Amino acid sequence: TRRGYPEAVLGEGKSVDQLVAIATALRDRGAQGGGSAQTILFTRVDPDRAQAVCRVLPDAEHDPLARMVAWPGTVPEPAGEQVLVLCAGTADIPVAREAWLTARYLGRPADLVVDVGVAGLHRVLARVPAIRAAGAVVVVAGMDGALASVVAGLTAAPVVGVPTSVGYGAAFAGLAPLLSMLNACAPGVSVVNIDNGYGAGHLAAQITAPRG
Amino acid sequence: TRRGYPEAVLGEGKSVDQLVAIATALRDRGAQGGGSAQTILFTRVDPDRAQAVCRVLPDAEHDPLARMVAWPGTVPEPAGEQVLVLCAGTADIPVAREAWLTARYLGRPADLVVDVGVAGLHRVLARVPAIRAAGAVVVVAGMDGALASVVAGLTAAPVVGVPTSVGYGAAFAGLAPLLSMLNACAPGVSVVNIDNGYGAGHLAAQITAPRG
Amino acid sequence: TRRGYPEAVLGEGKSVDQLVAIATALRDRGAQGGGSAQTILFTRVDPDRAQAVCRVLPDAEHDPLARMVAWPGTVPEPAGEQVLVLCAGTADIPVAREAWLTARYLGRPADLVVDVGVAGLHRVLARVPAIRAAGAVVVVAGMDGALASVVAGLTAAPVVGVPTSVGYGAAFAGLAPLLSMLNACAPGVSVVNIDNGYGAGHLAAQITAPRG
Amino acid sequence: TRRGYPEAVLGEGKSVDQLVAIATALRDRGAQGGGSAQTILFTRVDPDRAQAVCRVLPDAEHDPLARMVAWPGTVPEPAGEQVLVLCAGTADIPVAREAWLTARYLGRPADLVVDVGVAGLHRVLARVPAIRAAGAVVVVAGMDGALASVVAGLTAAPVVGVPTSVGYGAAFAGLAPLLSMLNACAPGVSVVNIDNGYGAGHLAAQITAPRG
Amino acid sequence: TRRGYPEAVLGEGKSVDQLVAIATALRDRGAQGGGSAQTILFTRVDPDRAQAVCRVLPDAEHDPLARMVAWPGTVPEPAGEQVLVLCAGTADIPVAREAWLTARYLGRPADLVVDVGVAGLHRVLARVPAIRAAGAVVVVAGMDGALASVVAGLTAAPVVGVPTSVGYGAAFAGLAPLLSMLNACAPGVSVVNIDNGYGAGHLAAQITAPRG
Amino acid sequence: TRRGYPEAVLGEGKSVDQLVAIATALRDRGAQGGGSAQTILFTRVDPDRAQAVCRVLPDAEHDPLARMVAWPGTVPEPAGEQVLVLCAGTADIPVAREAWLTARYLGRPADLVVDVGVAGLHRVLARVPAIRAAGAVVVVAGMDGALASVVAGLTAAPVVGVPTSVGYGAAFAGLAPLLSMLNACAPGVSVVNIDNGYGAGHLAAQITAPRG
Amino acid sequence: TRRGYPEAVLGEGKSVDQLVAIATALRDRGAQGGGSAQTILFTRVDPDRAQAVCRVLPDAEHDPLARMVAWPGTVPEPAGEQVLVLCAGTADIPVAREAWLTARYLGRPADLVVDVGVAGLHRVLARVPAIRAAGAVVVVAGMDGALASVVAGLTAAPVVGVPTSVGYGAAFAGLAPLLSMLNACAPGVSVVNIDNGYGAGHLAAQITAPRG
Amino acid sequence: TRRGYPEAVLGEGKSVDQLVAIATALRDRGAQGGGSAQTILFTRVDPDRAQAVCRVLPDAEHDPLARMVAWPGTVPEPAGEQVLVLCAGTADIPVAREAWLTARYLGRPADLVVDVGVAGLHRVLARVPAIRAAGAVVVVAGMDGALASVVAGLTAAPVVGVPTSVGYGAAFAGLAPLLSMLNACAPGVSVVNIDNGYGAGHLAAQITAPRG
Ligand SMILES: Nc1ncnc2c1ncn2[C@@H]1O[C@H](COP(=O)(O)O)[C@@H](O)[C@H]1O
Ligand SMILES: Nc1ncnc2c1ncn2[C@@H]1O[C@H](COP(=O)(O)O)[C@@H](O)[C@H]1O
Ligand SMILES: Nc1ncnc2c1ncn2[C@@H]1O[C@H](COP(=O)(O)O)[C@@H](O)[C@H]1O
Ligand SMILES: Nc1ncnc2c1ncn2[C@@H]1O[C@H](COP(=O)(O)O)[C@@H](O)[C@H]1O
Ligand SMILES: [Mg+2]
Ligand SMILES: [Mg+2]
Ligand SMILES: [Mg+2]
Ligand SMILES: [Mg+2]
Ligand SMILES: [Mg+2]
Ligand SMILES: [Mg+2]
Ligand SMILES: [Mg+2]
Ligand SMILES: [Mg+2]
Repeated sequence: TRRGYPEAVLGEGKSVDQLVAIATALRDRGAQGGGSAQTILFTRVDPDRAQAVCRVLPDAEHDPLARMVAWPGTVPEPAGEQVLVLCAGTADIPVAREAWLTARYLGRPADLVVDVGVAGLHRVLARVPAIRAAGAVVVVAGMDGALASVVAGLTAAPVVGVPTSVGYGAAFAGLAPLLSMLNACAPGVSVVNIDNGYGAGHLAAQITAPRG
Repeated sequence: TRRGYPEAVLGEGKSVDQLVAIATALRDRGAQGGGSAQTILFTRVDPDRAQAVCRVLPDAEHDPLARMVAWPGTVPEPAGEQVLVLCAGTADIPVAREAWLTARYLGRPADLVVDVGVAGLHRVLARVPAIRAAGAVVVVAGMDGALASVVAGLTAAPVVGVPTSVGYGAAFAGLAPLLSMLNACAPGVSVVNIDNGYGAGHLAAQITAPRG
Repeated sequence: TRRGYPEAVLGEGKSVDQLVAIATALRDRGAQGGGSAQTILFTRVDPDRAQAVCRVLPDAEHDPLARMVAWPGTVPEPAGEQVLVLCAGTADIPVAREAWLTARYLGRPADLVVDVGVAGLHRVLARVPAIRAAGAVVVVAGMDGALASVVAGLTAAPVVGVPTSVGYGAAFAGLAPLLSMLNACAPGVSVVNIDNGYGAGHLAAQITAPRG
Repeated sequence: TRRGYPEAVLGEGKSVDQLVAIATALRDRGAQGGGSAQTILFTRVDPDRAQAVCRVLPDAEHDPLARMVAWPGTVPEPAGEQVLVLCAGTADIPVAREAWLTARYLGRPADLVVDVGVAGLHRVLARVPAIRAAGAVVVVAGMDGALASVVAGLTAAPVVGVPTSVGYGAAFAGLAPLLSMLNACAPGVSVVNIDNGYGAGHLAAQITAPRG
Repeated sequence: TRRGYPEAVLGEGKSVDQLVAIATALRDRGAQGGGSAQTILFTRVDPDRAQAVCRVLPDAEHDPLARMVAWPGTVPEPAGEQVLVLCAGTADIPVAREAWLTARYLGRPADLVVDVGVAGLHRVLARVPAIRAAGAVVVVAGMDGALASVVAGLTAAPVVGVPTSVGYGAAFAGLAPLLSMLNACAPGVSVVNIDNGYGAGHLAAQITAPRG
Repeated sequence: TRRGYPEAVLGEGKSVDQLVAIATALRDRGAQGGGSAQTILFTRVDPDRAQAVCRVLPDAEHDPLARMVAWPGTVPEPAGEQVLVLCAGTADIPVAREAWLTARYLGRPADLVVDVGVAGLHRVLARVPAIRAAGAVVVVAGMDGALASVVAGLTAAPVVGVPTSVGYGAAFAGLAPLLSMLNACAPGVSVVNIDNGYGAGHLAAQITAPRG
Repeated sequence: TRRGYPEAVLGEGKSVDQLVAIATALRDRGAQGGGSAQTILFTRVDPDRAQAVCRVLPDAEHDPLARMVAWPGTVPEPAGEQVLVLCAGTADIPVAREAWLTARYLGRPADLVVDVGVAGLHRVLARVPAIRAAGAVVVVAGMDGALASVVAGLTAAPVVGVPTSVGYGAAFAGLAPLLSMLNACAPGVSVVNIDNGYGAGHLAAQITAPRG
Repeated sequence: TRRGYPEAVLGEGKSVDQLVAIATALRDRGAQGGGSAQTILFTRVDPDRAQAVCRVLPDAEHDPLARMVAWPGTVPEPAGEQVLVLCAGTADIPVAREAWLTARYLGRPADLVVDVGVAGLHRVLARVPAIRAAGAVVVVAGMDGALASVVAGLTAAPVVGVPTSVGYGAAFAGLAPLLSMLNACAPGVSVVNIDNGYGAGHLAAQITAPRG
């Protein structure tokens, strides 16, 4: 483990065989008492890869929408400040859910809200109490990425922006919201890689970690 | 005149001498009755160029902030629907003012509001009545360009987005708000060239023109 | 509905199941009198998704070329000014047709003309009367995007440019016509996202809406 | 103040006159008891602008290297967790110092270390205790931006990456370190705009703020 | 000489001293009978550099608008087919004139027409006879670069497109017309570097060279 | 026909049905004496599309490597100057062959040479006589695109560069040779779109056309 | 052979038939004594292509991970200085292995180490002796590409950086590590094309070649 | 010193005062016997900065063309293999000379040849013996960068490509030759940053270093 946080295995770019080998090694290490139920996250795993991993690690949990497998599957008892993950719509859900699950497997209390977009300001405004209650807000948005600026203007807590590749044409596979978020006109926004829900959830969990 | 609208002379990229020659030709054409007080706009003229033009055309009006000279300087009696120009701050004013003056010289009633930005939503919300009263809204914004999406969600009128080169770093001289506005998550937004206040004001005046 | 206009559901990036769920919810909302035949547009839906939606909403209309489903399928009685959609050739038809249908479902009288390209100026010139009769012209063009500039020079009405991803090589999936249209040398052109026929049709309908 | 934090005025893109007007308004507001010594930061101000501001606000403090003026100039008593700002060399100092001063004016204990670069790993390793003691680390780096990844691998605290425009050629004015940091191979890194020391210091102060 | 054509010396990026040294060497070579009045073109020379060259080569001719010095200054007797250089406006004149002079110094009959732009189609149409009479047409255009497509549709002769850096914002210093011309929807267009009037004039002269 | 040259139908982006409809219309027009054996070129047609076209037009000729169908299939008697098409290797053949066939169907004598690349200069040098004999040289090259500069230095005839999408990584689908050719350090090179063999062959045929 | 080194045939972009024809020609040339067991490398060959080549050349060796076929398959006796190939993880292995095999088939002693990444500095530090023993180090890295800078700071030998297309989002298919490595803050790094393991191994073998 | 090589101080981005402070510290360190005449290179120093450094270090040598100061100024006795630096013309000289001086101050025998460009192949061919005699060749080229591929095809020694920002328009400040060189169609080429003569000379010296 990297200084107390779960290890993560990036599923994308690995073959089923390679993932099975990794899962087997982890299982064997665990069996030898090499680690006391330290959580492992397999990220960006498609259904085939996920099922292959789960066959090796039967007590793992698979979230198909988030394309994530966690082993062991039990979510730890939450501690630290609240993490809030926000996104506008259906197409952003995989990334948002990956952020939300990561924060929870890293031990934070975390909520996921999917129905907020700047084109319907009233829906953003309805969430202001939740936004202000969080110790860190993850904003997942494609296309114009405008939600990050709006949310950062509503809270004193750090906002982690995750641009997504949702959109077409001049969205340029996430470049548009990436640049938009990097230029957020409210301070308090920082940005992770396009579609990097895992990284955002991890960072939010670090920000909200219980203090000594 | 192009189908009834004022002619414009782009000052940038022309020498003082060239502009003086153009102004002289226009004055002489006017003196010969070649045009009945048809307005001419000189855009993107720095102070030196503006003063040289005004020496030739003493009844011209120079707006240094907008870097514009209009000849003759009289604003026509407004007709058609209201144009509203919005921007967030000081650095966007030259472009916003260029849009606002263009719309007025093309004969529209037009307002300019400078204190709205998505980082302070209450200031946007305070302008909702004005936004909803306009027949076209010009949104001038640099950096994240998020204001265009927010405003388009608040009105049924067309929104003309003008990305500006305001900002630094990953704003990439207007690329960030350009892409952001092209991907506005509310329908009803279209975009003109970076810093093209003239084009936006012109288009807004066309949209709000009195109908036969 | 957003201020009187039909709602749109972006089909791309949603699974068949998700679209069926949305369609079912809309049907149930309608059955409960939640909306009086307010039109819903499903955009960018491939044949599978379209048919799944139509099974839930049998009185919907599917236009395969435009990749659009409208529910209910009846086009409203047209009102407001004329919308004209122009494109050069076969490959631009899906986007052009999406713009044309959107304008019609938003209640405008609208025409679609497919045989105009700047390489054959006589064909453009043959359309001048139609171009001048329209309250808004949507120009759909890939590759050099030159048609937008040419058309804007022929009319006092606003021109909405839709760059398309048609072309190859240095067209860079629509970047070439996008930049070309943003730099149109005639005023009166604004631009929406690459391939965004829906957005262009929507905007044209807003521009030509009947006035109070 | 935005929810308890100092206001900031971006000096770049404003004229001396505009800054003097802003400073005067702030001074008058203060004189009327409108704010109890709430700090104001003027960022990215060149020497001329800084001196003009200081003439209006004599109790302001000017840091020429950071191109910052703070009013009033007194640094608040530090509270919350430690902020550590790291950079490799001379050319990054303005940005690093801007981050460091911002964190201090926002009330955090903060250190600035200038002599660490991945080309001399021993110098990084010598700083591991300081890195591990911080509640947030700001890494300021141009060129390859590699320091962010290395530091994130050494601490469980969040790392805020600030790519700088230092370098030439294929550094593309900060694009190289921006992309590098967005792809940091260790989790725990997020990124702000190129050269945005203010934003990074602000975010670090938010992350390390004292908890209720 | 490269296979019979004049040599060219690119003035940009060379110091006054370096150009004087080159001019002196050329003069001395000529004095020694090393070349029988073979023309030399100095391109992209600012006034200072041009005057320095002309002091060494008094029988040279300097065209300040084209930023070109030719030595000896006499234009050769024209032979071969006609070259026509077209551009839309004032700001493109330096590049257009460089193309025109190059073609003439390479021995072609050549015309320069400055008042054609696609926003005013009648002005293009008025030039159709001249366009059809030319053996090669050089089209110099910034911004949307649309003129190249339009002209290529009007003639069977090759069209050499020269995108210029005229424009601002999303013209991206000539990228917009470059891409536009590379995607010209009429066959018969090829493109040279942005602002490369010399290269275009040279190529047009090669295309129209007298045949053995 | 466009001023005497064959019409071309771009196969890419059209369905089999659309191509069959076009072929049928052309056949019927021909049957009605609407055109006296005017050649039609179908470009970028995959095998399925090509065969469908040939079923409608049995006297057409299909070149699978060039992905081209010509109707009628007979190559006209050559006239005008020689066209030479050069490329380095196997992967460039489709584009090179498309250029070569186009030039021949437009009525030029044309040769295709495939084994020349700048990494083996002796192979280029062995072709110098052929290069110098041609009235226009088409250079087809991916990756570094260096062949265009080398060839232009060897001949006084115009060189038409066709960058190809051959290569990987930083070739960026043809961007590398496109930029390289636009910056050819020898004059006499102009460039067409990436992979545009048709356009290059067409242009070469225009350049070498018999003169009145 | 190019000056003593094995020839390489780039498999990508060639059909199975074309590769079989090349392999057959090479075999026949060998059978005629045309070459004394000079090695040939087929690079970037997928399994189908590899097997087709091996059927023609039964004494060839296929490395599926490296996507390489070598004929004859025997690795030559190593001579010259040691080559060390380093990469961080599973997804970089194909490229790293291609570099390693190329160096070995070119006659160098070469090692491949896969478990080093800057996020775990101890693993880099554990390899310092091996790094310092090598005459050239090939660093294969995607994402942030930071390993090249770190390694170059640890050795006086040349470092050949190979950016890989491993990663997603703002890795932009290898652009991020390409730019990062080009801006390596330690001297001694040069870069080859994205994913070009063959080129890197070839260059490392040239650098470490035995000296006369 | 980094493992035996001279230290370098990048002059660009440092003030005169900062450079004087560095020079003074180095002089004092030397006076204290802290280094036995270890060479220091100041790179990219303009005349003012160079002279300020030389006033502190009178035994330094300033090369204004290369924008370099070396201290002490004595070039060491050459050892190792020959380095050859090639470039095409006047504008590339500063970068080429920086590479050449760096190699010499690092202790290699080095030659600089300035008159070779691919547009005049005979001049390249005249240099083949010198190219083949070198242990490493540095190719400095702007615009099309084609020289690197050509040279790499002529020698078995490593070629270090240095793209330069020489050129205009679509050279995009060195991007064109950078991409061209990264895609060199001959193996044996690797690339350093645009205009990085220092890095190329350093690397060439490492490649040609005497072996134990
Ligand atoms: N600020 C501006 N931005 C973009 N286009 C402009 C601007 N000002 C004028 N124009 C256009 O440029 C044309 C005049 O160009 P010119 O003949 O060079 O003065 C006018 O007809 C306008 O269409
Ligand atoms: N083809 C389209 N292109 C761009 N935006 C669209 C398109 N279709 C629908 N939209 C927008 O996307 C919103 C619906 O998104 P969603 O909730 O994901 O279905 C609508 O309110 C529209 O504003
Ligand atoms: N304006 C120009 N644009 C592009 N290439 C040019 C230009 N002027 C001269 N050249 C080319 O640059 C070469 C001379 O370069 P130089 O030796 O640097 O003077 C000539 O042979 C021309 O091929
Ligand atoms: N994987 C590779 N990446 C880059 N260049 C390669 C690769 N494999 C072979 N080459 C080069 O491509 C040339 C062969 O190309 P071809 O004739 O198309 O097989 C060889 O001489 C090598 O220089
Ligand atoms: Mg905030
Ligand atoms: Mg709206
Ligand atoms: Mg118009
Ligand atoms: Mg960490
Ligand atoms: Mg033509
Ligand atoms: Mg030539
Ligand atoms: Mg090193
Ligand atoms: Mg070589």
